[in-house]
Amino acid sequence: MTPDEFREAGHALVEWIASYRERLAASGYPVQATVSPGEILASLPRSAPEHGERFENVLHDFEAKLMAGITHWQHPRFFGYFPSGGSLSSVLADMLSTGLGVIGLNWQASPALTELEQATTDWLRDLLGLPDLFSGVLQDTASAATLVALICARERASNYGASREGLQDRELAPLIVYTSVQAHSSVEKAALLAGFGREHVRAIATDAQFRMIPRSLDEAIRKDRAAGLRSCAVVATSGTTATTAFDPIAPTAEIARREGLWLHVDAAMGGSAMILPEYRHYWQGIEGADSIVVNPHKWLSTAFDCSLYLVRDPEHLVRVMSTNPSYLRTAVDTQVRNYRDWGIPLGRRFRALKLWFALRTDGAEALRQRLRAHVHSARWLAAQLERTAPWKCVAPVTLQTVCVRHEPPGLGGDALDAHTRRWTALINDSGRAYLTPALVGGRWMTRISIGSEYVSEQSVAELWRIMQEAVAEPASLRSSRS
Amino acid sequence: MTPDEFREAGHALVEWIASYRERLAASGYPVQATVSPGEILASLPRSAPEHGERFENVLHDFEAKLMAGITHWQHPRFFGYFPSGGSLSSVLADMLSTGLGVIGLNWQASPALTELEQATTDWLRDLLGLPDLFSGVLQDTASAATLVALICARERASNYGASREGLQDRELAPLIVYTSVQAHSSVEKAALLAGFGREHVRAIATDAQFRMIPRSLDEAIRKDRAAGLRSCAVVATSGTTATTAFDPIAPTAEIARREGLWLHVDAAMGGSAMILPEYRHYWQGIEGADSIVVNPHKWLSTAFDCSLYLVRDPEHLVRVMSTNPSYLRTAVDTQVRNYRDWGIPLGRRFRALKLWFALRTDGAEALRQRLRAHVHSARWLAAQLERTAPWKCVAPVTLQTVCVRHEPPGLGGDALDAHTRRWTALINDSGRAYLTPALVGGRWMTRISIGSEYVSEQSVAELWRIMQEAVAEPASLRSSRS
Repeated sequence: MTPDEFREAGHALVEWIASYRERLAASGYPVQATVSPGEILASLPRSAPEHGERFENVLHDFEAKLMAGITHWQHPRFFGYFPSGGSLSSVLADMLSTGLGVIGLNWQASPALTELEQATTDWLRDLLGLPDLFSGVLQDTASAATLVALICARERASNYGASREGLQDRELAPLIVYTSVQAHSSVEKAALLAGFGREHVRAIATDAQFRMIPRSLDEAIRKDRAAGLRSCAVVATSGTTATTAFDPIAPTAEIARREGLWLHVDAAMGGSAMILPEYRHYWQGIEGADSIVVNPHKWLSTAFDCSLYLVRDPEHLVRVMSTNPSYLRTAVDTQVRNYRDWGIPLGRRFRALKLWFALRTDGAEALRQRLRAHVHSARWLAAQLERTAPWKCVAPVTLQTVCVRHEPPGLGGDALDAHTRRWTALINDSGRAYLTPALVGGRWMTRISIGSEYVSEQSVAELWRIMQEAVAEPASLRSSRS
Repeated sequence: MTPDEFREAGHALVEWIASYRERLAASGYPVQATVSPGEILASLPRSAPEHGERFENVLHDFEAKLMAGITHWQHPRFFGYFPSGGSLSSVLADMLSTGLGVIGLNWQASPALTELEQATTDWLRDLLGLPDLFSGVLQDTASAATLVALICARERASNYGASREGLQDRELAPLIVYTSVQAHSSVEKAALLAGFGREHVRAIATDAQFRMIPRSLDEAIRKDRAAGLRSCAVVATSGTTATTAFDPIAPTAEIARREGLWLHVDAAMGGSAMILPEYRHYWQGIEGADSIVVNPHKWLSTAFDCSLYLVRDPEHLVRVMSTNPSYLRTAVDTQVRNYRDWGIPLGRRFRALKLWFALRTDGAEALRQRLRAHVHSARWLAAQLERTAPWKCVAPVTLQTVCVRHEPPGLGGDALDAHTRRWTALINDSGRAYLTPALVGGRWMTRISIGSEYVSEQSVAELWRIMQEAVAEPASLRSSRS
């Protein structure tokens, strides 16, 4: 594609995206994709074309064949999973990044890429109210950041022995990772990838508000030590996936300090709230963390992927991760950050542009207002539920997530679970809103996560009407998909 | 940013990128960034703005403050590292991806994302001449893909014991990974991250053409087995970083089969060449591989990041990688691919759009012609070197990379190394071309990697003039930076 062809196609695509967003903001699509498994695959040719086609044909095919297979995360009534940052300024930033087509293998390979990442990760750290004893790097996802954290914990516990001699060769007792029963699946995955093994991950009990119980953590550590095992790391969550609970940081950090554990704080979702001073009390004691991950691509409007990983000891991180092949060395290596040694991949996109554009075009205050509006909507919805039996909030509304069950009298156990999943699926399948069912305490509930790009008070009110309709007149909702 | 503001800013950015590419194609920038360490960082404010600014200010600042810190990978005279795919159609694809703002947590979260990935990875597999016993997934980088491969190897060798009980708990003898002395640094990094340990990576000797010697691999395995260690995996390279050498696949696969080793083929760079039938002989025996990684974001024009990971046994991959928390389960999970279980991160961009746009707007034949033109240019340059003493090609020109030394009579050893690094740095610092020095066989040489978006026969001829000038009249080159 020549620059002139790009001009024509690019302008058309800008119009397409602007129109898509306008229609989306006006709820002009069913939220959930309307295709069946295999339908799109079957509609596509079995092999790549030998000869090039006009861009407009490809965009036309996208509309005709693929759009029905999009679940619209930025839709005003998308309340699934978690918010996926969708600000249009970060869309432009990503376009600039790929338009430049540079890769940050080392500082020299594009100094701006490295230094803007230093600047914007510092900006964000300060906005989150964190002290400057933390240094930041952008990773793709919290899954990768947590894996890096556990590998760093493993290396500190083994005095770099695991990276040198492997985990098998050591005199070292098996290393144990602690996290709560409400922790994200990526913690267990990281532990198994890093060679700890699933059986060496302890799922610590939580209290009635789904927060890790420090006393239980303490007991588990004592028990493991008595059994000749070695406590290595604890992962505390700020904003759990199911209910956005915040594990208590100060007592966890105190235990970690006393026992010599690495403290990683998985604040992928909840960390963003720390741009609001009224939430900072949840991070009391955070300066005791060894590493923290916060995903601006979740609740800070930045397009996926953009995960902020903060560490207290970058030298340790670099010592664990670094490789120094001849073809990557330059004369200035001792004067600069080489972010390749701050994570798993060697190649790096110019991701910092997304943060830079988002923070500069929106400004910090607009981001704070945005988050407060989501919290306000969540509390409004919770208030409706509380006053409308048999609806029930099954977890405290800490941030912007409402955990709900509709509990008709006499319905319990598996029958209640079936009811929960039925009305949730009915809403999702109707295309009118999208919610995520989840297990908490062994029972199904429905999560309503507020924060898509175009969510509003009105769309939350509309959801509340749809929920009531789903349990009162399921047939009408069923027929709304046509 | 509203859709209307996006329209205005987006059209401006499309023009900016088109103009950037035009000026780039006309060599209108110094190739290497012209800033000193810390210069950009010092030019940026210390904190994020409280209030939003107009997009045009941000774009203006990008030009004024950051452009001098860009090393232009798509420049006609960028010959560093490896080609970074820079096609403008994949730029548009990535923009569409972020414009949609969807995340592929599971199939239902956007079925089109999953099924287009199935379709396009199949397309590419077929274009590479691979049999359909391989299934594909897109990863961010070859570093991550190789880490996944080694973890899968570890789990096969330990009968899933490492992920269950950890590496430390096993009766299992230490697991050994084999690769060549010319392998990429990501292999060693993957082995240490996965808990094998650096000391359990064997760097097998290469022949005069920098290819792994199967007999040496065989001997290393025998020696390790005799010492009570357990051979686990071999990583063969198709297109090494320093010289684009191809390790012999057929004898390596035969050894892997006989000894029960996982065979991972790191074809990050060289795999793209397999769209050309004349290169397929290098992959004789490839059906014996357990996993292969090929980076379309290197030599197949696709914007970074887009790394194709192919596996023979997807069930094994999923069994190693899968987590199944309640909030990600859907009713169709048994009928669909859930790519979250095919790699490390949970969240996934809509990356397949990049492959789809690139393959459809260019067509396979144009890609083949493009690669052949680069190979032709590399051979032309090598021919000039061979007939112009004391220039010398120090490695066979297999693909599009020329490895060169200028060896004035009487200069050897460290003095020759200093000379090599001096004329290379002189060219890089002049901004007229960009080359990568590298060690091979303990001595420095200079790599010329041909394949940037705007490279041409003319720019390679110009490079050859610059190289001759750098050794004959260094002062003139020094003054060209002004």
